[in-house]
Amino acid sequence: MFESAELGHKLGKKEFKHEEPLLRSALLNAQYDLAELKRFPVLIIIGGVDGAGKGETVNLLNEWMDPRHIHTHAFGPPSDEEAARPPMWRFWRALPPCGKIGIFFGSWYTVPIVSRVLDHTSDAGLQQHVDEIFRHEKMLTDEGVLLVKFWFHLSKDRQKSRLKALEKNPKTRWRVTADDWRRFKHYDKFRLVSERVLRETSTATAPWIVVEGEDPNFRSVTTGKILLDLLRAHITAAKAKSTPQTRKAALLAAAPPLPKMDNRGLLSGMNLSLTVARNRYQKQIEKLQGELNLLSRDKKFARCSTVLLFEGMDAAGKGSAIRRITAALDARRYHIVPVAAPTEEERAQPYLWRFWRHLPRPGVVTIFDRSWYGRVLVERVEGFCSAADWMRGYSEINDFEEQMSCGNSLLIKFWLQISKDEQLRRFKQRELTEFKRFKITEEDWRNRKKWGLYEAAVCDMVDRTSTEIAPWTLVEAEDKLFARIKILKTIIDRLEAAR
Amino acid sequence: MFESAELGHKLGKKEFKHEEPLLRSALLNAQYDLAELKRFPVLIIIGGVDGAGKGETVNLLNEWMDPRHIHTHAFGPPSDEEAARPPMWRFWRALPPCGKIGIFFGSWYTVPIVSRVLDHTSDAGLQQHVDEIFRHEKMLTDEGVLLVKFWFHLSKDRQKSRLKALEKNPKTRWRVTADDWRRFKHYDKFRLVSERVLRETSTATAPWIVVEGEDPNFRSVTTGKILLDLLRAHITAAKAKSTPQTRKAALLAAAPPLPKMDNRGLLSGMNLSLTVARNRYQKQIEKLQGELNLLSRDKKFARCSTVLLFEGMDAAGKGSAIRRITAALDARRYHIVPVAAPTEEERAQPYLWRFWRHLPRPGVVTIFDRSWYGRVLVERVEGFCSAADWMRGYSEINDFEEQMSCGNSLLIKFWLQISKDEQLRRFKQRELTEFKRFKITEEDWRNRKKWGLYEAAVCDMVDRTSTEIAPWTLVEAEDKLFARIKILKTIIDRLEAAR
Repeated sequence: MFESAELGHKLGKKEFKHEEPLLRSALLNAQYDLAELKRFPVLIIIGGVDGAGKGETVNLLNEWMDPRHIHTHAFGPPSDEEAARPPMWRFWRALPPCGKIGIFFGSWYTVPIVSRVLDHTSDAGLQQHVDEIFRHEKMLTDEGVLLVKFWFHLSKDRQKSRLKALEKNPKTRWRVTADDWRRFKHYDKFRLVSERVLRETSTATAPWIVVEGEDPNFRSVTTGKILLDLLRAHITAAKAKSTPQTRKAALLAAAPPLPKMDNRGLLSGMNLSLTVARNRYQKQIEKLQGELNLLSRDKKFARCSTVLLFEGMDAAGKGSAIRRITAALDARRYHIVPVAAPTEEERAQPYLWRFWRHLPRPGVVTIFDRSWYGRVLVERVEGFCSAADWMRGYSEINDFEEQMSCGNSLLIKFWLQISKDEQLRRFKQRELTEFKRFKITEEDWRNRKKWGLYEAAVCDMVDRTSTEIAPWTLVEAEDKLFARIKILKTIIDRLEAAR
Repeated sequence: MFESAELGHKLGKKEFKHEEPLLRSALLNAQYDLAELKRFPVLIIIGGVDGAGKGETVNLLNEWMDPRHIHTHAFGPPSDEEAARPPMWRFWRALPPCGKIGIFFGSWYTVPIVSRVLDHTSDAGLQQHVDEIFRHEKMLTDEGVLLVKFWFHLSKDRQKSRLKALEKNPKTRWRVTADDWRRFKHYDKFRLVSERVLRETSTATAPWIVVEGEDPNFRSVTTGKILLDLLRAHITAAKAKSTPQTRKAALLAAAPPLPKMDNRGLLSGMNLSLTVARNRYQKQIEKLQGELNLLSRDKKFARCSTVLLFEGMDAAGKGSAIRRITAALDARRYHIVPVAAPTEEERAQPYLWRFWRHLPRPGVVTIFDRSWYGRVLVERVEGFCSAADWMRGYSEINDFEEQMSCGNSLLIKFWLQISKDEQLRRFKQRELTEFKRFKITEEDWRNRKKWGLYEAAVCDMVDRTSTEIAPWTLVEAEDKLFARIKILKTIIDRLEAAR
C-alpha cells in the first residue's frame, strides 16, 4: 500500500504557486457550501509516520479554510472521565455536527496499531480491533458522515533523514524528542502492522488515502485536492438525495421482513394471565427492594456501571416499574434518561450520539425510559427513517451494546407487554385521573392504531438484538404487580451473576 | 437562624397519613405544569448537618414526584476535567434546563464552609466566597431559575443520638463512618460558620429554608409543602409574565443610560487614520507570529489557558485577524468558537451557560468570534432582552471573567472599530468576491442602520467591563494591516506579562 508513496513525489515551486490560490478558494467555497447545506459532517482522520507532515497539513487545512468551522482534536492520554467509559466514548463526544469539519489527530487507530507494534496485543487481538473499527466506520458513513482518512508516509531512510534535518535546525529542534527516535526503532514493525490495518479498513465509502510526506508542496496540494473532490462529490450527492421523490424512494427501498406465516410470534406466545396477589406482592416487593438496596451498596457495584433499559407498549407500566427500582436506590446513584424527540444538537449527529453522551461512570445506574431501540420501533413503524437505515440499526445496536459491556457496564433490557384491551382500559383510566393527565396524547391514540406493526417490529427487534451479552427480558405486564416483581428479580439475578 | 429548628418539631403518624397523598399528587401536578410550561428550571440545593435526613429527603422527593424529570447530582471530589476549570464549571455543567428539576447534594456552599471550619481559609476568605455566591445566585434567579435552598438542622445532642441510633441498627450501620464522627467533633464551629453563611446568602429571591431534621414526618411534609408553594407561585408568575403586554413593558422598564451630551465617546476619540505600509507589515507580522509561536511552546503556557475574545462592527476584520493568530499556532492547541444564535439546549439555560461549556483546559487557546458581550450589544440594541436584563449583564460578565482569571485563564478582549464609510466599502467589496458571498446578509444591512445605537452600546460596554483583570483593547481597524499588528503585539505583551 505504500509503494506509490515512496517514489519521491515532488511539486515544483512554480506549479505550487499556481495551484495554491485556486485550491484555497475552491476549498473555502466547498466549506461554505457544506455549512450552508448543513446536511452532513466531515471527519478527517490523520495518521501516519512521524515527521511525514501530519501537523503541518492539519495547520495548513486550518489556514486554507475557515478555521472557525473546523475543530481539531488531538487525542493524548484519556482524562479520568474518558477512562471510565468505553474507549469510543471520547471519539463520540468529539464528533463534528452537520455542516462542520472535525480533524482527528490520533484516532481509534492509534491504540490498536501501537499495541500491536509493542506486542501488547496479538494478531488476533488486532484483528478484533480492526473488525470493530470497520463496523464503526460503516455506521458513521451510513449515517452520512463524510469520513476522509489520510495516511502520511515516509520510507525508513527518508524518515531518518527528516528527523535528523529537523534536529539540525535550531528552529525545529524542539519537535524531535527521544520518543521519536524510540519509535523510529520500530519502523519496520510499524510499517507492517499499519499496512495490514490500512488494507483491512479501506472501504469503498471510507478508503485510506496514502500521501507521500517528503515534499511539502506535493503533500499539501495532494491532500487539498483529494479533500476538495470528496467534499464536492458529497455535497452534490446530498443535494440530489434531498428531493421529496428520492426521499420517498429511499423509504420504500428495502422491504421489511416478512410477517410470520403462522401468526406465531414471541409476543403472542406470552402468557399475559400471570398475576400475583396484592398481599404477596407487598411482602415480595419489600424484600426485593431491600436486596437491591444491599447490592447497590456492595463495593463491587461501585466498580461497574449498570444500564437498565425499558421499552414497551404505551401504558405498559414502564414509569411505575422504574419507580419501584429507584425507590430502592439512593438518588445520588441513579440517573433516569427519558427519551423523547432529539434536540437540535442531537439531530446534527449520528443516531447513537445522543445515547453515548449519557453513558454513566462506574457506580451509577442509568435508567433509559425508552432508548436507542426507537430506531427499530417507532422510526421503523412511522417511516421516520428508511428501511435500509433501521435494518442496519440492529447490528449497530449490537455493536454499541457490546462496547458498553466491554467497558464494564451491565446492560439489562426489558420489554413490557400488555394486551390491546388492557391498553384501552388504561388509556381510559388515565384520562380520568387528574395527575396522570399528561400521559395520554393524540399520539398515543395514533400509535394504538398501528398495534400490529409495532408487534411485528418488536418480534424482529428481540430476534435480532437479544444477545448473550445483552439478552431481552420479556415481561408479562398485564398485571402491573407481577411485572414489577419480575423486573426486580431479573435485575437482582443479573447483578448477582455479574459480581 | 437555627433556633426554630431545635424545638423538637413532630408530625403525628395520623396527620402524616392524611397529608402525604394530597401533597404527593399536588407536587406531581406542579411538576407536570413546570414541564409543560418549560419556562424556567428548578434548582434545589440541599445542605445541613449529617444525619439530619438530607439523603432521605432527596430520595423522598424523587419518590413523590416523577423521577424521570429530576436530576440529582452529588458532588464528590472533582474529576480531572473539572479540576482544570474554575470551581463553578462543574455546577454550570450540571444545571437543569427549563422545565426540569435539579437537586444538588453538596453545592457551591460545601467548599467555603468546610474550608473555614477546618481553618483552611480566614474569615476574609470566607467573606469573599460568600460575596461570590451571593452574586452567582442573584444571576441565576434573575435568569429565571427557581432556586430553593434547604438546610437540614439537628442540635448537637440530637445529632449525637441520631448517629448512635444509626450505628446501633444493623440495617443502617453502614451509613455512619469514621468521617461522620470526625466531623461531629467540629459541630460547634460548623454551626457558627454555616449560620453566618446562611444569614448572608438568604435573599428575597433565594432564602434559606431551615428544616428541623429529627422527625421524618415533620421534615418530609415541611419540605414538600414549601417546595409546592414555591413551585406554584413561580409557575403563576411565569404564566403572567408571558403576555405580549407584560413582555413589552419589561423591555421598556429600565431606561438605557443617557447618551454623552457632548458627543465625545471612546470610539469617536479613536484615531482611525493609523496605518502601516505593506512591506513593513510583511516583516512585522512574520516576526510577531514567530514570537507568538515560541511563546505558545513555552512550558508555562501549558499551565495556563488563554481566552481571546473578538467583538467589532460587522466587516471590521475579526475573521482575518483571527486567521493571523491561528496561523502562528498549532491547530491542536486552539479552538475557535464562532458565536451565532444559541441552540435549543442553550436557550433552555441561563445566558452564560453556553460560554461556560466552552471554557478550555490549560494549554489551550480558545478564540471567541463574538462572545457573551452579545448580551449588552446585539441583545440590547435589538431589544432581544429587557433593559433590566442587559443592565445586570455588565456585572454578571465581570463576575464571569473574574472567575475565569482566578481559574488560571488569561483573557484578552478586542474591540475592532471601523468607520461607517469603510464598512460600506467592505460590504460592497464582499458582495463582489465570490468566496466571501456568505458573509453579507440582510441582517448586516439592517444592523448598519443602527450604527449609532451600536456605538452607544459599545461605549457603555467598555466603560463597564474594562477591568484590571480583563481590560478591553480598542483596535483601530480602518487599516486591516495596522489592526492585525496591534492585535498580535497585544497578545504577545499580555502573554509575556502573565508568565
